[in-house]
Amino acid sequence: MANPRFYSTNGPISLRKLADISGAEIGKGADPEAEFVDVRGLFEAGPEHVSFLDNKRYIDTFSQTKAGACIVHPDCADKAPKGLALLLSEQPYHAYAKVAQAFYPAPPPIDFRAPTAVIDKTASIGENCQIEAGAVIGARAEIGDNCHIGPLSVIGAGVVVGNDCIIESSVTVIHATIADRVTIHAGVRIGQDGFGFAPGGDGHLKVPQIGCVYIEDDVSIGANTTIDRGSAADTVIGEGTKIDNLVQIGHNVKIGKHCIVVSQVGISGSTEIGDFVMIGGKVGIAGHLKIGSGARIAAMSGIMNHIEAKATVGGMPAMPMREWLRSVAVFRRLAAKKSDA
Amino acid sequence: MANPRFYSTNGPISLRKLADISGAEIGKGADPEAEFVDVRGLFEAGPEHVSFLDNKRYIDTFSQTKAGACIVHPDCADKAPKGLALLLSEQPYHAYAKVAQAFYPAPPPIDFRAPTAVIDKTASIGENCQIEAGAVIGARAEIGDNCHIGPLSVIGAGVVVGNDCIIESSVTVIHATIADRVTIHAGVRIGQDGFGFAPGGDGHLKVPQIGCVYIEDDVSIGANTTIDRGSAADTVIGEGTKIDNLVQIGHNVKIGKHCIVVSQVGISGSTEIGDFVMIGGKVGIAGHLKIGSGARIAAMSGIMNHIEAKATVGGMPAMPMREWLRSVAVFRRLAAKKSDA
Amino acid sequence: MANPRFYSTNGPISLRKLADISGAEIGKGADPEAEFVDVRGLFEAGPEHVSFLDNKRYIDTFSQTKAGACIVHPDCADKAPKGLALLLSEQPYHAYAKVAQAFYPAPPPIDFRAPTAVIDKTASIGENCQIEAGAVIGARAEIGDNCHIGPLSVIGAGVVVGNDCIIESSVTVIHATIADRVTIHAGVRIGQDGFGFAPGGDGHLKVPQIGCVYIEDDVSIGANTTIDRGSAADTVIGEGTKIDNLVQIGHNVKIGKHCIVVSQVGISGSTEIGDFVMIGGKVGIAGHLKIGSGARIAAMSGIMNHIEAKATVGGMPAMPMREWLRSVAVFRRLAAKKSDA
Repeated sequence: MANPRFYSTNGPISLRKLADISGAEIGKGADPEAEFVDVRGLFEAGPEHVSFLDNKRYIDTFSQTKAGACIVHPDCADKAPKGLALLLSEQPYHAYAKVAQAFYPAPPPIDFRAPTAVIDKTASIGENCQIEAGAVIGARAEIGDNCHIGPLSVIGAGVVVGNDCIIESSVTVIHATIADRVTIHAGVRIGQDGFGFAPGGDGHLKVPQIGCVYIEDDVSIGANTTIDRGSAADTVIGEGTKIDNLVQIGHNVKIGKHCIVVSQVGISGSTEIGDFVMIGGKVGIAGHLKIGSGARIAAMSGIMNHIEAKATVGGMPAMPMREWLRSVAVFRRLAAKKSDA
Repeated sequence: MANPRFYSTNGPISLRKLADISGAEIGKGADPEAEFVDVRGLFEAGPEHVSFLDNKRYIDTFSQTKAGACIVHPDCADKAPKGLALLLSEQPYHAYAKVAQAFYPAPPPIDFRAPTAVIDKTASIGENCQIEAGAVIGARAEIGDNCHIGPLSVIGAGVVVGNDCIIESSVTVIHATIADRVTIHAGVRIGQDGFGFAPGGDGHLKVPQIGCVYIEDDVSIGANTTIDRGSAADTVIGEGTKIDNLVQIGHNVKIGKHCIVVSQVGISGSTEIGDFVMIGGKVGIAGHLKIGSGARIAAMSGIMNHIEAKATVGGMPAMPMREWLRSVAVFRRLAAKKSDA
Repeated sequence: MANPRFYSTNGPISLRKLADISGAEIGKGADPEAEFVDVRGLFEAGPEHVSFLDNKRYIDTFSQTKAGACIVHPDCADKAPKGLALLLSEQPYHAYAKVAQAFYPAPPPIDFRAPTAVIDKTASIGENCQIEAGAVIGARAEIGDNCHIGPLSVIGAGVVVGNDCIIESSVTVIHATIADRVTIHAGVRIGQDGFGFAPGGDGHLKVPQIGCVYIEDDVSIGANTTIDRGSAADTVIGEGTKIDNLVQIGHNVKIGKHCIVVSQVGISGSTEIGDFVMIGGKVGIAGHLKIGSGARIAAMSGIMNHIEAKATVGGMPAMPMREWLRSVAVFRRLAAKKSDA
C-alpha cells in the first residue's frame, strides 16, 4: 500500500518479534516464526500482512479478513476467521503503532551538511546531524546529536536544540530552547514577538517581548502552527504534547504534558493548561485562564472561563458537554415549533 | 487601474475578438472592429474600457457607465446607456473572467534555472521550466513541462509534478503527486505527516503515516494552507477544486471535483466530500463523514454528521439552512422577551 | 528575567530619564538620580528593578512589591509600600511600554548583505539595510533605509518597501507597497492572488487579480498571516493597525487606522473596516460589509451584516453584545428547565 516512491518497508518480521515490539501476546495456535512483510488495512490485507482491529464498527470485516496476522483486543478474539494469527493486546491501536513503526522506522539522519546551508561559525552542531539545503543556523545556536534540520529552515541566534530532533522545511525557530526528540513540521513559526501592544487613543505602543519559548521532550508541532514567545516569562509546551497544524499559541501560554491540541485551535496569551488535556479542532481559548488536567474540550468550542480538571465541555461559550448537547436539542425543537405557528 | 509596476495589459483587443474569447454575443449596433485597451469597473471605466454587470445591485451604475463596452446578461440590455457596446452573455461573470484573462494572461514560464536553486542530479525536469532562486528539488523528483517553481520552495524526494503547474514561493511539497495545471500559492504545506497518534495514559504513540497526497488537474490551493498525507491510503483533492488560504485538510480526506473551500476551513481526517460542494469560510468538519455532491455549507458552520447531496446547511452543529435561520430568529426573540421581564 | 542568550539590557537608566521617556511624573520623595537596571514583574522585582501596576487585580502584590520603582496610576499611589519610587501616569501600561523599550530597544539593522542573498541588479536598496542569508529580492524592487530583511524572505519584482521596516524570515511580499516602520513577522504571505473564481457548472474560471496590497505606516503583521492582493483596486491596511498571527485578509479589504485584529480572524473580500476597530480572535466577517469606526467585535463572532460605528457586538450571527450575553443566559436556562421535565 505504501508507495515505493516514498517508503520502503523493513519487513519481513516474525510474529515473535512483532509480539515483542508491541507487547502483545501471541494467540493460541499461531506460529511465532511466521513472517510478515508489511501492514495493511483489514480489507486490503493478504496472508503476508499484519492488520489490526481497534474500532468495533469493523468487526464484520475482521471476521472476513484475509490477513495473515491481526492485532486485536482479547474480547474480540472469538470473532477471528480460522487460521488468522492473533496478536492480543488491551490497546490494539497502541500495539499497531509499534508494529507499524517497526515496518516503517523513521529514517535516521545521516551526517551531512548541505553546501548551501549557512551555518554561523559560532554555532555548535552535534554528531550525526543532517543539515539540508539552504538551512540557516545563527550565531551561538547549539544543536545536539542526531538532528535533522530540513531545507530552508532558520534556527536563530542563541537557539538551543536537543538530541534526536526533526525540524522539517521552511521552519523558523528564534528565542527558543527545544529539548529532545521534538518534531517540528514545515512552516512552523516559533519564538516571534507576541501580540503585545499598549492601546491608546493615538495608536498602539509596542511592548517589548523579552521572554522565550521552551519546548519540552517528545513534543510534536504541526505544519504552519505559530507559537509566540513570552512577554517576560516563557511560553512552554510540556513533554509529549502533540499539536496539529495551523494552531496559534499566544505569549506566556503554558501547556502541560501529553496534551492533544487539534488543528486551528487558538490559545490566547497567559492561559495555563494542565496535563492530558484534549482540545478539539478550532477551539478558541481566551487569555489568562486555567484549564485543569484531563479536561476535554469539544471541537469549535469557545472557552471564556476557567475549566475544572477532568471536565468535558462544549459550545460557545462552553458549558458542560451534557448541558450543551441538551441545549442544542431544545434550540432545534423551539425552531421547529415556531415554524408550525 | 492595474499598477504598471506589476502588470502589463495585452490590449488593445477588438470587440469581435472579445466576443470570440468569452462566448458572448455582440449587441445590436455595436462595431465589432472597435478596440478596447483594458478592463475597468463600471464606475471607473471610460470609452476605451470594457466593463461588466453581474450583480443587479449595480444596475444604476450600469445605466450611467461611461465604459465603451460592457458584458451583461441579455435581460439587462435595455438598461444600457446609449452608445454602449454590449457583449451579451448568460453568465456575465464567467465571460468577464475570460475577457480579463485575455487582457492579463498569466505570464508563461521562461526556461530558467536559478544558479542558487539546488536540484538533485537524479531529479528530472521537463521543458521550459522556470526554477527560481533557492528552490530545492529532491532526489528522483519529476517535474513536467512549462512549470514555474517559485523561490525557496521545496519539492521533496520522489514528488511528481505534471505540466503547466505554478508553485509559488516558500512552498513545501513532499510525498505527493501533482497533476497538470495546478496552482499552489506561497507557504502551502503538502504531504507532511497527518496527526496520527495512538493515545495512552503514559503518552501518545506516533502512528507512521505511510500514504501520500494526490492533487488532480486544475486544482488551486491558497497561501499557507496545509494538506496532510494519508495514513495508509492517499489524501486526494479532486479535479478543478479551488481551496483558499489557511485551510487545513487532514489525512485521508478525499475532496471531489470542482469544490470551493473558502479560507480557514478545517476538514478532519478520513472525511469524504463529493463534487461541486461549496464550503464557506471557517467551517469545521469532523472526521470520517460523508458530504454529498452539491452540498452547500454556510460559513462558520460545524459539521458533526453526514450531509446529504444538494443539502444547504448552517449553524453549529449544522442543520438545514432554513431551520438554522429560523432558530436564530427564535433565539433573538426569546432574548428580547426575557429582557422585558 | 530576560534570557541573556537572546537579550541584553540597555540599563542602568536613571529615574529622571525613565520619567522623561515615559511621560510619567516622579512621585514625592523619590530620588531622580536613582538608577535601575531592568524591568520586572511586581512579584519578581527587586530594589534594582522598575515594575508597573496596570490591572487593579494585582494591587495587593503592588503593596508588597520589593521593586525599587513602579509605574502606577495616581489613584493607586497611596497603596504603595514605603520607600517605593513612583512613576505616576494616567496610562501606566503605555508608560511601561516606553520604559521597557528603553531597556530593550529593538536592535538597529546593521549594513549587511549576506553573500547568499539573491538581489536582482535592478533592485534598489537604501542605506544601512541588513539583508540576511538566502533572502531573494526581485527586479525593480525598491527598499528604503534602515530595513531588515530576514533570512529566506522573498521581496517580489517591483515591490516597494519604505524606511525602517522589519521583515522577518520566510516572508513573501509580492504586488505590494509597504510604507515606513512596518513589521512583518515570519511566514507572512502578502500579495498573492485573491480567491476570485467565476463559478460554473463545468468548473470555476479564474478571474485575473490585477490589484495590489498597500500597507501604511507603523503596521504590524503576525506570523503566517495571509493578505491577498486586490482583484482590481488595492487591499489596504491602514496606519498603525496591528494584526496578529494566522489572520486571513481577502482581496479588496480595506482596514482603517489603528485597528486591532487578533489571531485567526478571517475578513472576506471587499469588506471595509473603519478606524480603531477591535476584532477579537477567530472572528469571521463576510464579504462586502462595512464595519464602522470604533466598533468592537467579541472573539469568535460571525459578522453577516454591517456594523455601526462604536457598536459592541458578539455571537454568531453577531448581535449587540448585551443582547448576546442575555440570549446565552436564556439558552442555558431553557436547557436546564427541559432537563428537569
